[in-house]
Amino acid sequence: MKQLSLAALLLASLPSLAQKSKPAENLVQYAHPIVGTAKMGHTFPGATVPFGMVQLSPDTDTLSYELNGKYNPDMYKYCAGYQYSDKTIVGFSHTHFSGTGHSDLGDFLIMPTTGPLQLNPGTADKPQSGFRSTFSHATEVAEPGYYRVKLDDHNILAELTATNRVGMHQYTFPQSDQAHLILDLMAGIYNYPDKNVWTFVRVENDTLVTGYRQTNGWARTRTVYFAMTFSKPFTDYGSRNFAKRQVYRGFWGKFDQTKNFPDLAGEQLRMFFNFKTTANEKLKVKFALSPTSTASALQNLRTEAPGWDFDKVKGQAQQQWQQELSKVVIESPKKVDKENFYTAMYHAFLSPTTYMDADGQYRGLDQNNHKADGFTNYTTFSLWDTYRALHPLFNVLQPKRNADMVQSMLAHFDQSVERMLPVWSHYANENWCMIGYHSVPVIADAVMKGNAPFDANKALDACVTTARQARYDGIGYYVQLGYVPEDKSGSSVSKTLEYAYDDWCIAQMAQKLGRQDIYQEFNKRAQNWRNVYDQRIGFMRPKMADGTFRPRFDVLSTNDQGFIEGNAWNYSLYVPQDPAALIQIMGGQKRFVPHLDSLFTMHLPDKFFAETEDITRDGIIGNYVHGNEPAHHVAYLYNWTDQPWKTQARVRMILPKMYRPTPDGLGGNDDCGQMSAWYIFSALGFYPVAPGSPEYALGSPAVHGATLNLENGKTFRVNVKNQSDKNVYVKEARLNGQKLTRPFLNHQDIMNGGELTFTMAAKP
Amino acid sequence: MKQLSLAALLLASLPSLAQKSKPAENLVQYAHPIVGTAKMGHTFPGATVPFGMVQLSPDTDTLSYELNGKYNPDMYKYCAGYQYSDKTIVGFSHTHFSGTGHSDLGDFLIMPTTGPLQLNPGTADKPQSGFRSTFSHATEVAEPGYYRVKLDDHNILAELTATNRVGMHQYTFPQSDQAHLILDLMAGIYNYPDKNVWTFVRVENDTLVTGYRQTNGWARTRTVYFAMTFSKPFTDYGSRNFAKRQVYRGFWGKFDQTKNFPDLAGEQLRMFFNFKTTANEKLKVKFALSPTSTASALQNLRTEAPGWDFDKVKGQAQQQWQQELSKVVIESPKKVDKENFYTAMYHAFLSPTTYMDADGQYRGLDQNNHKADGFTNYTTFSLWDTYRALHPLFNVLQPKRNADMVQSMLAHFDQSVERMLPVWSHYANENWCMIGYHSVPVIADAVMKGNAPFDANKALDACVTTARQARYDGIGYYVQLGYVPEDKSGSSVSKTLEYAYDDWCIAQMAQKLGRQDIYQEFNKRAQNWRNVYDQRIGFMRPKMADGTFRPRFDVLSTNDQGFIEGNAWNYSLYVPQDPAALIQIMGGQKRFVPHLDSLFTMHLPDKFFAETEDITRDGIIGNYVHGNEPAHHVAYLYNWTDQPWKTQARVRMILPKMYRPTPDGLGGNDDCGQMSAWYIFSALGFYPVAPGSPEYALGSPAVHGATLNLENGKTFRVNVKNQSDKNVYVKEARLNGQKLTRPFLNHQDIMNGGELTFTMAAKP
Repeated sequence: MKQLSLAALLLASLPSLAQKSKPAENLVQYAHPIVGTAKMGHTFPGATVPFGMVQLSPDTDTLSYELNGKYNPDMYKYCAGYQYSDKTIVGFSHTHFSGTGHSDLGDFLIMPTTGPLQLNPGTADKPQSGFRSTFSHATEVAEPGYYRVKLDDHNILAELTATNRVGMHQYTFPQSDQAHLILDLMAGIYNYPDKNVWTFVRVENDTLVTGYRQTNGWARTRTVYFAMTFSKPFTDYGSRNFAKRQVYRGFWGKFDQTKNFPDLAGEQLRMFFNFKTTANEKLKVKFALSPTSTASALQNLRTEAPGWDFDKVKGQAQQQWQQELSKVVIESPKKVDKENFYTAMYHAFLSPTTYMDADGQYRGLDQNNHKADGFTNYTTFSLWDTYRALHPLFNVLQPKRNADMVQSMLAHFDQSVERMLPVWSHYANENWCMIGYHSVPVIADAVMKGNAPFDANKALDACVTTARQARYDGIGYYVQLGYVPEDKSGSSVSKTLEYAYDDWCIAQMAQKLGRQDIYQEFNKRAQNWRNVYDQRIGFMRPKMADGTFRPRFDVLSTNDQGFIEGNAWNYSLYVPQDPAALIQIMGGQKRFVPHLDSLFTMHLPDKFFAETEDITRDGIIGNYVHGNEPAHHVAYLYNWTDQPWKTQARVRMILPKMYRPTPDGLGGNDDCGQMSAWYIFSALGFYPVAPGSPEYALGSPAVHGATLNLENGKTFRVNVKNQSDKNVYVKEARLNGQKLTRPFLNHQDIMNGGELTFTMAAKP
Repeated sequence: MKQLSLAALLLASLPSLAQKSKPAENLVQYAHPIVGTAKMGHTFPGATVPFGMVQLSPDTDTLSYELNGKYNPDMYKYCAGYQYSDKTIVGFSHTHFSGTGHSDLGDFLIMPTTGPLQLNPGTADKPQSGFRSTFSHATEVAEPGYYRVKLDDHNILAELTATNRVGMHQYTFPQSDQAHLILDLMAGIYNYPDKNVWTFVRVENDTLVTGYRQTNGWARTRTVYFAMTFSKPFTDYGSRNFAKRQVYRGFWGKFDQTKNFPDLAGEQLRMFFNFKTTANEKLKVKFALSPTSTASALQNLRTEAPGWDFDKVKGQAQQQWQQELSKVVIESPKKVDKENFYTAMYHAFLSPTTYMDADGQYRGLDQNNHKADGFTNYTTFSLWDTYRALHPLFNVLQPKRNADMVQSMLAHFDQSVERMLPVWSHYANENWCMIGYHSVPVIADAVMKGNAPFDANKALDACVTTARQARYDGIGYYVQLGYVPEDKSGSSVSKTLEYAYDDWCIAQMAQKLGRQDIYQEFNKRAQNWRNVYDQRIGFMRPKMADGTFRPRFDVLSTNDQGFIEGNAWNYSLYVPQDPAALIQIMGGQKRFVPHLDSLFTMHLPDKFFAETEDITRDGIIGNYVHGNEPAHHVAYLYNWTDQPWKTQARVRMILPKMYRPTPDGLGGNDDCGQMSAWYIFSALGFYPVAPGSPEYALGSPAVHGATLNLENGKTFRVNVKNQSDKNVYVKEARLNGQKLTRPFLNHQDIMNGGELTFTMAAKP
């Protein structure tokens, strides 16, 4: 079904592409997967197609959760398995998160080696002690859909590409009688004792291996099935079971399971396959995944990657990327602008990931296999991050996929024994990470923007049921008291503010669908943000069950102040559903504007930075934290005052500061594309401050012009006159020739096609 | 499909039943599930339908494999979960083996309790220390399809019955505000650390719970799914995770998972469900199993047990048993004869067990779900035991089921990555227990007896492929040297003898199917028994790879003498395919008969008995070991001499000695019905010495007459004239009026219908 939808997209956007007289520019060249792989970006450089199930990438380490029995802080750096500063590669695994602040996956690590067989990865400081290899960035190429690196210790050139469900490896070996492929079924990202619950492998014949890996962890009950095939038969193979704990072995002792034995199972397995290679011989591996069974993995393999032409598969992958990147064609004299823009587009189109076999089967939250009826099922919903700008961006550039993502969320709801929409879900599991019920704004945004080819009333009911789950994260108190009491449920202010916003989204949907009772109930709940505002100090503040504000309070600290991933300064501005009311309660714009100014200009003492998670020093401007999400709308709040020009200035300051086309170019976790989506919108000159509202706040475009090629066949032009690094102020904005009197734009004006023309100036 | 086949059986045998003028006698009354539950019988007393997937039975203990870090020998007593001498019941679990000498299963233990909640079973010596209860055999009733007992400590009357895939519990409670149902997902038979790989539970609503249990063990990768429903809503519920090892818990800490939380997973879970009961209130539970998914378990529940009428379900179960037991209607003035006979029939019809959802889906050896196309899929194949008499019995009384069992074996072969037919398999796993490739005689017996509604050539190919697996248990050496060398592969003589017999079976099939090349190859292999016969001492004897017999040898010991579950005296007689040749090589009948006599009459010193596994002292007559299988054909070998009357005497001596209708009435493990099948054949007066041959050796009938109601609608009568305990000798045997000149009977003579008339006498 993925294939079909891609074909549909292709057809849909051909006319719009055709409108451009000159041949389509190669945009893939500007997207750099390596961006964000250093420090806190937590992106991966490997190969994948847009929203692919297989995201095949090098892991430079797979540290254990435990180090000498204690939590290992270094492990956090490996959320995506790769750190640019590392000198060695352990192998190439098939699943990765992009930009998350917590981690999992890293399934099925494959490493080609030469020389004496080694079944331990060895250590970074002593690479020779194991099968890992040193490498140099000089030999490394990371493009959308393609990755290449030289494994120096083994003298092997490794190349990776992928289809949706199949990773393709091409390893150019030296002449060797000791060529090996290691299949490490123990390796994983965010490993810890007993994360591997079970692994099962069958060597079906001398070119085909099937099996699965079942893990506990961030996803509590997670199973990934595979089918792996080689371009030539192995000479022999074997395995080792590293399980420390005694496991009953029954009568399997009749066999030597370590050598050429095809039937393996256990907790901690590593396998090896031996080959003899001639100089420069290309040994290829196709590795298919399935959420449901090894039979389906094999079917996925045969459906998507029947041949062995690596370059053909690579070409198809990059064609898919060209297709997706072409949805926005920007103009700029500076290559760096295109690099930033298309790298952001690339990162924005990595997740949610496809979670469905080629035939529509997927594993549900109830661990039963289900068939996706008329939609592509997706997983990896980092909703606390992505509801803000990523899903709104999809409503512009990926409406079909976004509608399918909503259907995936609704299927999740139908399978949820808690009767809740996804909070943070992946691979048929809810991991409950972060706060809020932010499936709601994603659904509301789709409904309010007319992108709802699903039962909107059923969707609304799912939102309401979710929002009434008294058992979940303080909702009971929230409904009863009008706020979450800090002494009952931590991060209470963040929860109260976000619940209130989510509730506003429900109210908007209910109103549109004519469900008055629901509208009344949730419009009232949407006001609850007022209950945690402390008038005396002018900040949102943790309130106790007895109705008093908690005395102990520090507006700069993010540590146990009633907030999560943000301090009072940033989070107090979180009323996206009604900035005007926020400004009023904070004393009107005369007091609000200077307050907002100081957020960007004040100095945040280091001790408070140290508390700020997930971001680098660059991720902060003054006390404005761009590296985390709660303040992503803040720069646009000036639009609700008489000084919108300050929004324009802030945005143009933030863009180049927070996004650079270098490995360390991201100021914080990319968070499954949310950071990148912020860039894309802002660079185009508008931003969805309150998803669920059809309105965008205008900012200041960074591009010199852009054409949005919409799925509906229409195009929306962004023209920018007098653009320059100095001319950051919008003197005038016209929609289809008509001057805009307010710094806002409506979603329908984009989807109808047309043009938005900014005239820039050096002064406000 | 099971339902259909039962209906078919019903119709098929009605006419034959009709032939009997008087109304059918209630035969269920004579079958006593309690027989064999003491000492070494390893049977279970609980409720099941014939060949049922659910075999719901009380467990009197669930000991751990380890006791203070060492193997716990007592655990062996609990192969079926129940020991008659015990004073307490831990609970009622849904799957059990019948009569095995190794163990597994015991899935989903349920225990009703009253009073303060206890989540530990407690110990047998201190029942009050846990949820287990004392009980008395005085309150215990064990009938086919029905079990009842009073749980004294909780003042609860427990009753059990079952459909094929659903166990039904009826618990009569006292008035109590503290009534509980414990669902123990940790409990299991043959437990040991980490046998539980994973458990997953969802409380779907206040009367429905679903989930699964995944175990390692005798079945290495085994998952059983369930759906459990209550006859009234619980008031509240909870769980405890007893996992000792640290397991990552992620963000589930947002919830209190111990109380009323519906979404549970982990390694070691016990759950409780609370109720308030009035005096004598009947609380009912329906517990459905599935090999494939919780969705299928729920479907099985709704298909087979839609209502709550316990007595109706019990009635249907007992009707099914009456149906099956009626396939042989015996005559005898002595109740004990009927009790022995129908108890044997009951035990013979417990396994193999149904392993397929109501819609035909089952889990394959490849751990994929498959659909059984046109047959009922069975599991639990204890083939080293059951090929001898049980499957031959099925070819007479259960031809359709036996053909389906063969199809199940062929499906197993198709899924086997070792390319082998089942050795000892259960629940989509091969456990490789015992020796030989005894799927072969089961298939050969079906083919040679014309009960092969499957592709016989494909079946033959599967047999040949299996028999050529050089990797398996010494077959490589066997093919190369003509015997298995003891210094390369233990129990080498037993393997050589049994491989040779299995090979003869392949040769018979090949000849019948006109596959000359295969016939030649395997007819030659069938002679290999000669290679381990030591002419100088007159016994089969372990031979080394260099061709010399191992010097160290003891013909009485079963301990490391080249045999398994038998000594040289018993095993040396194992050439069922050609007793005449064996007698000749052993010096002709003049030497053979006294040799055979002494087997039954000699005294086996205690030290050797101590080595004899799986049987009680009663399981031995002289040095003849009936409690194990290798000598099951031996009493019939006199038929190949001029003194067949000795067979008659031996059989009539063995029958009452080895089978009594008491808890300790079985001389050894019933071995999934093999011991019982020996009784049934022998009591009817004939026995299949060499399955794969259509010939039965005549013995001495113990019944006074019998009518076999065959599935083909025909009846075969066994008439016995002058029958008495003293008249054990057959003066004359006539088939359809014609005097038999040889003490043998052909299978087709039975299936064609007709009558076999024995005239008995007190002297040979």
